Amino acid sequence: MTMFRRTNAPLLAVASMLGLGVPAVAHAQALDLEDYRPVADRIIDAALADSASYERLTELVDRFGHRFTGSESLERAIDWILGEMRRDGLDNVRGEDVLVPVWVRGEESAELLEPRRVDLPMLGLGRSVGTPPGGVTAEVLVVSSFDELEARATEARGKIVLFNVPFTSYGRTVRYRSGGAVAAARAGAVASLIRSVTPYSQLTPHTGAMRYADTVRRIPHAAITVEDAEMLHRMQRRGERIVVHLTMAADTLPDAVSRNVIGELRGTEQPDEIVVIGGHIDSWDVGQGAMDDGGGVVAAWEVIRLLHDLGLRPRRTIRVVGWTNEENGLRGGLAYRDRHRDELERHVLAIESDAGVFKPSGFGFRGSDAAFEIVTAIGSLLDRIESGEIRRGGGGADIGPIMREGVPGMGLRVDGTRYFWYHHTAADTIDKLDPREMALCVATMAVMAYVVADLPDPLPR
Amino acid sequence: MTMFRRTNAPLLAVASMLGLGVPAVAHAQALDLEDYRPVADRIIDAALADSASYERLTELVDRFGHRFTGSESLERAIDWILGEMRRDGLDNVRGEDVLVPVWVRGEESAELLEPRRVDLPMLGLGRSVGTPPGGVTAEVLVVSSFDELEARATEARGKIVLFNVPFTSYGRTVRYRSGGAVAAARAGAVASLIRSVTPYSQLTPHTGAMRYADTVRRIPHAAITVEDAEMLHRMQRRGERIVVHLTMAADTLPDAVSRNVIGELRGTEQPDEIVVIGGHIDSWDVGQGAMDDGGGVVAAWEVIRLLHDLGLRPRRTIRVVGWTNEENGLRGGLAYRDRHRDELERHVLAIESDAGVFKPSGFGFRGSDAAFEIVTAIGSLLDRIESGEIRRGGGGADIGPIMREGVPGMGLRVDGTRYFWYHHTAADTIDKLDPREMALCVATMAVMAYVVADLPDPLPR
Repeated sequence: MTMFRRTNAPLLAVASMLGLGVPAVAHAQALDLEDYRPVADRIIDAALADSASYERLTELVDRFGHRFTGSESLERAIDWILGEMRRDGLDNVRGEDVLVPVWVRGEESAELLEPRRVDLPMLGLGRSVGTPPGGVTAEVLVVSSFDELEARATEARGKIVLFNVPFTSYGRTVRYRSGGAVAAARAGAVASLIRSVTPYSQLTPHTGAMRYADTVRRIPHAAITVEDAEMLHRMQRRGERIVVHLTMAADTLPDAVSRNVIGELRGTEQPDEIVVIGGHIDSWDVGQGAMDDGGGVVAAWEVIRLLHDLGLRPRRTIRVVGWTNEENGLRGGLAYRDRHRDELERHVLAIESDAGVFKPSGFGFRGSDAAFEIVTAIGSLLDRIESGEIRRGGGGADIGPIMREGVPGMGLRVDGTRYFWYHHTAADTIDKLDPREMALCVATMAVMAYVVADLPDPLPR
Repeated sequence: MTMFRRTNAPLLAVASMLGLGVPAVAHAQALDLEDYRPVADRIIDAALADSASYERLTELVDRFGHRFTGSESLERAIDWILGEMRRDGLDNVRGEDVLVPVWVRGEESAELLEPRRVDLPMLGLGRSVGTPPGGVTAEVLVVSSFDELEARATEARGKIVLFNVPFTSYGRTVRYRSGGAVAAARAGAVASLIRSVTPYSQLTPHTGAMRYADTVRRIPHAAITVEDAEMLHRMQRRGERIVVHLTMAADTLPDAVSRNVIGELRGTEQPDEIVVIGGHIDSWDVGQGAMDDGGGVVAAWEVIRLLHDLGLRPRRTIRVVGWTNEENGLRGGLAYRDRHRDELERHVLAIESDAGVFKPSGFGFRGSDAAFEIVTAIGSLLDRIESGEIRRGGGGADIGPIMREGVPGMGLRVDGTRYFWYHHTAADTIDKLDPREMALCVATMAVMAYVVADLPDPLPR
């Protein structure tokens, strides 16, 4: 195993210092990595030369729209990607079957009946049960937190509980989407609603996954908009009686077969050692799934298409995976782990892009200290596009299962200013993304993947 | 007629200069206006002491929602305001009947059928005819401008023309909303669509008024979202055949009676001389009409409620008017002109707030140079809240008819950064406004209205 520079200080400065008495072995090793700068520059220049990745993503989302697990559009999109990957000349292009859950939204609506009639834009939450035919009509209790619900549990019986929880961080706020139905059902509620998980709204409902507990009655669970949640809360504070009619025809059908999409750039020397890079090909059933996560899949795919077209083939294999069913099951990531279990020892690194292909700043990495030093040093090759900062901690939902088996993992870090404005909404569309920012994502992941795949030794675990 | 300082330079500085030989007459007159500073400060302090105006607006929009011409909610909101104004102790509170057009939206939808099926969120445009029952199904021609339509007129026959015009300024872009149907029908189109008039979208359609020409066939005219207009344009550029199914049950019913809402603070010395201040009480039939223009009406109303509660009664009358039917007819502004024609000579000034009650910066004024000098000097009383800058040009739609009869007019100028994000959409809701910014609007209009109404002489025409 070689040692690498710890900092992002300019390599030329290091090289000049090296002449002042640094041991020869350190000198040679620093230059080892510096040897990659010309190829890194070539990759960056090529990625930024055009809008190829953005155009490919545009074609994907315009042709197929959203790609929800169990939908025809997802499987047709997978067929198209496989065909395009073959046309690109990639290696070992294939779909790997994955058994996936099938949740269907069905007709749904929410209507405020008292104190006055208002249509409330809403989205049922993934995995929720439906209402009885004809819907549920009940008084609403608005609470600001699980604690408030607990304190007012006696008021919740027979009502629809609305969690009007302002967005702080995604992690803190999404707990009400995940666990709101269980908490409300425990208090005897007949249905539960959440304020959409977002810092900004234009009367925009946000969907997402939720869960039940085996020991608690399953009640319908849906998201309404920030605006309407706030309005209902104001009405309650004014002492008004609030009545909502909720209808959801949501249903869970038998599991079906989807596919993880795979293409490779086979390595020249250790083809059985693998750098995995990807995102998830499925999306929610609204919008275009352009940033969640069409952009991630296409950017990863473009990494090896670009390397292939440049004639750059590293020592190890780079494998692109478009995981299926991230949004409402994670079955793609789990199936990949199970099917490739024998290979996981030789998975050198897993890279995921699932935070939108906005302006990248670097990666969040989870792995050994020795590996962290190496990827930090590789990051310095990205200084010219300011996307090489490596932080500790990170990964991605789809690579989580293999990371838990010991594979070092990293997630692409990007400007997240507006990501949650669009997350899981009808407004997750291609026009919110920028061709150059997406190209920077491709450049950033391509340099990292290429160099890790080409190093003399695999990343240390 | 008195003369006033021309600039916003601090009055103390002027006063000190006055001692250095400025003619006595100017000295006396500058001090005349400076005499208003204590009362202006008192008004500002009172307006900023609480969130009364924001709370009143919240109650209006939560209780009645949007207030479209011809709707029950508009008339009920008017009844409520009249009752509240009487409880406030205002003078001459009354509704003045106005015959208004009644346009009803009805069920409506747009669906992309080819190259793939997509629901296109849309809003029919005010005054549009509907489609035949069952809708219109036709190929789409996307153009970027009237010029492009003219150049491609032979391609438009029998099609739905979509104007995909990026937002530049409201004035330049709204021409396609107003006149798109006429231009498309001239080219033989069966219906017309516009890209919503907005610089920002979360799949948000924007409605608004449109017009027909007597000599041109009337075709249905609706707005789709920025996202979908862009997508259809991309599809056309890729050579794909685009087919849309448009259904609109829009209809125009017989005229009905609505009301302009009026309340006064009668003047102590020249009660027949009037400063009019107001906004429009009607809104579009989506959202809450919180910024367009509930905020303007309530802020103007709060001006005289505040002066009344402070015991500040100027020499002249301040009359608040909530005009009806601004959005799709302007009949309120026209009826006010006609009913008060005999009084217009004694209308000293008309002030309108119809750009949202965001952070105010001053007023746009249209009147004589002499009057401009005076209102500019009054503006200096607002220096401490940075809302006293008077620019030339301005007014408002509702006060337009009386301004054209010679009444000096001004429009409240505010931070317009996000106004058009919400304009005429379901997202025009109270949560987008800020209590302190709205209080600043009240303070700004109250100082201007009070001082103009109390000056020894009326504003010169």
